[in-house]
Amino acid sequence: MSLRLTILGCHSATPRKNAFPTAQYLEINNCHFLIDCGEGTQRQMRKYKVGFSKINYIFISHLHGDHFFGLVGLLSTFGILNREKEIHIYGPKGIKEVVELSLKIAQSYSKFPIIFHELSSKKSELIFEDDKVEVYTIPLKHRVYTNGFLFREKTKLRKINITATQHYPEIEKCDYQKIKEGNDYLLSNGEVVSNSKLTFDPPKPLSYAYCSDTSYLPKLKELISGVDVLYHESTFLKDKEELAHKTGHSTAAQAAQLAKDSNVHQLVLGHYSSRYQNIELFKEEAQEYFENAHLAEPGKIFEISA
Amino acid sequence: MSLRLTILGCHSATPRKNAFPTAQYLEINNCHFLIDCGEGTQRQMRKYKVGFSKINYIFISHLHGDHFFGLVGLLSTFGILNREKEIHIYGPKGIKEVVELSLKIAQSYSKFPIIFHELSSKKSELIFEDDKVEVYTIPLKHRVYTNGFLFREKTKLRKINITATQHYPEIEKCDYQKIKEGNDYLLSNGEVVSNSKLTFDPPKPLSYAYCSDTSYLPKLKELISGVDVLYHESTFLKDKEELAHKTGHSTAAQAAQLAKDSNVHQLVLGHYSSRYQNIELFKEEAQEYFENAHLAEPGKIFEISA
Repeated sequence: MSLRLTILGCHSATPRKNAFPTAQYLEINNCHFLIDCGEGTQRQMRKYKVGFSKINYIFISHLHGDHFFGLVGLLSTFGILNREKEIHIYGPKGIKEVVELSLKIAQSYSKFPIIFHELSSKKSELIFEDDKVEVYTIPLKHRVYTNGFLFREKTKLRKINITATQHYPEIEKCDYQKIKEGNDYLLSNGEVVSNSKLTFDPPKPLSYAYCSDTSYLPKLKELISGVDVLYHESTFLKDKEELAHKTGHSTAAQAAQLAKDSNVHQLVLGHYSSRYQNIELFKEEAQEYFENAHLAEPGKIFEISA
Repeated sequence: MSLRLTILGCHSATPRKNAFPTAQYLEINNCHFLIDCGEGTQRQMRKYKVGFSKINYIFISHLHGDHFFGLVGLLSTFGILNREKEIHIYGPKGIKEVVELSLKIAQSYSKFPIIFHELSSKKSELIFEDDKVEVYTIPLKHRVYTNGFLFREKTKLRKINITATQHYPEIEKCDYQKIKEGNDYLLSNGEVVSNSKLTFDPPKPLSYAYCSDTSYLPKLKELISGVDVLYHESTFLKDKEELAHKTGHSTAAQAAQLAKDSNVHQLVLGHYSSRYQNIELFKEEAQEYFENAHLAEPGKIFEISA
């Protein structure tokens, strides 16, 4: 089980020479997700060698340009590359209309189906599930309807302790599945071998919480408690806390306070305002509250193995 | 009088690590125009120091993504930068609906008026005129409705030959305007001083023709005859002439043949297909037909003074 997060863009507002609007590529338990898609994301994907064909699910937090103006271009490129596989897009209500009109007007007719999952709930909901991963929305507080996303590996089966099973010759390979599922084993002499004797714990399921854009919301700790990696926007430093509140953003200090209160393992900061030349200040400020705080930077990879 | 063309992007199809879709910034007779606006154009503008506030007129050749997917992002950024001045957008019918919907959905409400000039004529027409420059459409032949654009400086007033006027003390400064306009001067003794004695020719009006995307159209020479700079797409080399024809594009050889037949001063090639690693081949091929052929490259500037 593993979690690998590649930052494609992590700056707020407008693309600039050395500033790339938000986009992230998440690989978790062999599932591949694109999170947000600011203008230029497809170029960043090529630069950091993110395979276009691996992307089957795109999650858009909100419809401000710095989080989705690269989406139509990316879909258009999928068409040029002769993609046939369907793609799923999760995002606020309205995303379907604008994407479909843009592709129609550009005559980017595609062979691949685009399946929209428009979101409008203000409560956290399960929006994606397969046998390996679940994705929940994290309702955020911004100037427009916005969701973060919580990605959780599903608990895997327990691991067979081969040495232990060898003490019981009547346990055969065809019994393994039930044992992996946590069942005890009933021997023919009526003795019960407890599952804990026959198996090891499965690897810990990993989790990633993406929270951008949002005001500081202390109550988020209920949803993101104990996640392995928390990305939380830090558009401003704490001297601009009032401006952060007014514009629906957070400070590095607030992101770090939430990381601490939520008992997460690692915090990644990003969505820096263009007013700051030196982003190291965000890390310094956050580390006053939460030591394991890091800076998102284009091309940077955060990786965890369980 | 001067003409200065800055190439912002000159590659076809999709943005890649070192490939930027079409956009150009034209300064002609102190007017400033943006021509096409592929994804990432605003970043290229910042990189090559094109002042956002100078852009009041944007010309979009056609609605394929590599020529307009950067437009909504650029307009959105104008809003973030608190632009108040109106902007004029010239492009195919349909552009208004998609831009307005995209800005609405992104809640990029702007204070500045956006004035759309939707084009649908298949004949060349004058679409812009002020006291310094005229812009005509150049109907092209592509897979969708497409126009090139012809930018022409207006003829300026003749220049007063101060030394010559000093031979006629009764000519005063208040007479200069009429002389500049080409009138002869009637002396009080009844003698007529011909205008050619009193003035120099004005600088030659410069002109620029932008032709992308298009099949080879020999008849274009009637519209672009004698222009100072011709940008003509060369998506392919001549070994792919059939493919060029089929996809509504041209080869470098065809662009050069047209440059020669149109008696232009300088040819700029671009819109290179991603299949070619070495773009020097386009120049070499073109120069077999037309010596003064050059390659468009991001950041490259073509400048002419009259």
